[in-house]
Amino acid sequence: MYQQIQHFYARQLRLLDEGRTAEWAATFEPGGVFDADGLPEPVRGREAIESASRAAAEKLAADGIRRRHWLGMLEVGERPDGTLLARTYALIISTPRGGPAGLHMSTTCDDVLVRDGADLLVRHRRVRRDDLDGRED
Amino acid sequence: MYQQIQHFYARQLRLLDEGRTAEWAATFEPGGVFDADGLPEPVRGREAIESASRAAAEKLAADGIRRRHWLGMLEVGERPDGTLLARTYALIISTPRGGPAGLHMSTTCDDVLVRDGADLLVRHRRVRRDDLDGRED
Amino acid sequence: MYQQIQHFYARQLRLLDEGRTAEWAATFEPGGVFDADGLPEPVRGREAIESASRAAAEKLAADGIRRRHWLGMLEVGERPDGTLLARTYALIISTPRGGPAGLHMSTTCDDVLVRDGADLLVRHRRVRRDDLDGRED
Repeated sequence: MYQQIQHFYARQLRLLDEGRTAEWAATFEPGGVFDADGLPEPVRGREAIESASRAAAEKLAADGIRRRHWLGMLEVGERPDGTLLARTYALIISTPRGGPAGLHMSTTCDDVLVRDGADLLVRHRRVRRDDLDGRED
Repeated sequence: MYQQIQHFYARQLRLLDEGRTAEWAATFEPGGVFDADGLPEPVRGREAIESASRAAAEKLAADGIRRRHWLGMLEVGERPDGTLLARTYALIISTPRGGPAGLHMSTTCDDVLVRDGADLLVRHRRVRRDDLDGRED
Repeated sequence: MYQQIQHFYARQLRLLDEGRTAEWAATFEPGGVFDADGLPEPVRGREAIESASRAAAEKLAADGIRRRHWLGMLEVGERPDGTLLARTYALIISTPRGGPAGLHMSTTCDDVLVRDGADLLVRHRRVRRDDLDGRED
């Protein structure tokens, strides 16, 4: 399962980084939640997740910025209800066209994942930025 | 074993990064050694390892800095005595409250790991900073 | 296979980073290709790959720079001919002697890998820099 989750994240974040936002949104459950403390409130459901990420992808493309999400330092646990808790560190790397790569942000990412046949879906993602102080750990 | 070591590091470094220094120290053998070329001499034994890391964690907390240790590029070998040699690259990422994330340091980390039931413990850790020149490789 | 490729990359890039350029070149097929958009043209064959990487390693050593290649976010697929397509993100970290670590570059790395007994070899590597705009994805 550990390796399957690593593989899932590699595919999932690449979809986001390549601006394939419909496929990205489809890696969440239909009613999945994206809760990031950099956002005014949690984004709920595939449609809202797609629309928020499309807006972000279009802005990055307009600004000529290539963004990469790295997830690592994966911890996996099984929850009593059979869902999985997957905790990672995340780095966001930004490179402007013709410019130097930069470390844009460091966050944690805590996911509740559910099995979907042979695949996985995100039920709930909680992203906490290291520069903000509302962390509950 | 490879995956188990990845998982071990994710848990172990998160303990350090969250300031859970007693649990962090308990991931070393009772007489484990932490040998880092940024320190005046190797730190020996759980108590000393805990005390050194607690001092560092308190200083970071006082300074409002969130630190993340990323280990990656894992190589694993078995040694003749049955212990494991686990070699990684390590990045330390620092984010001040309200400020930008920064790459604090790049090091290598060479561990001798021992099996402890279903778990692992560090017998000896050797950290070598990329900015110093005392590397033996 | 996923884990084997992670392990292969850890070994392979460490060879490069330690300047062990003959061993590095031997991780490619004899007629392997290294196609990076930062180079004027693809480098073909072990001899040319070794010679190009040795020149780069000597320059880094002369400049007192320690370079680390991190590969992560691995995606693996099997191709119809039985070879493997391994896609990763790559970060290059540079640390000058006595100076601060820096993020040198962010790229993608798409490899065609072939089995060689119990081991793997690179048949074709395609590196695309995030700061350049000739990306085909």
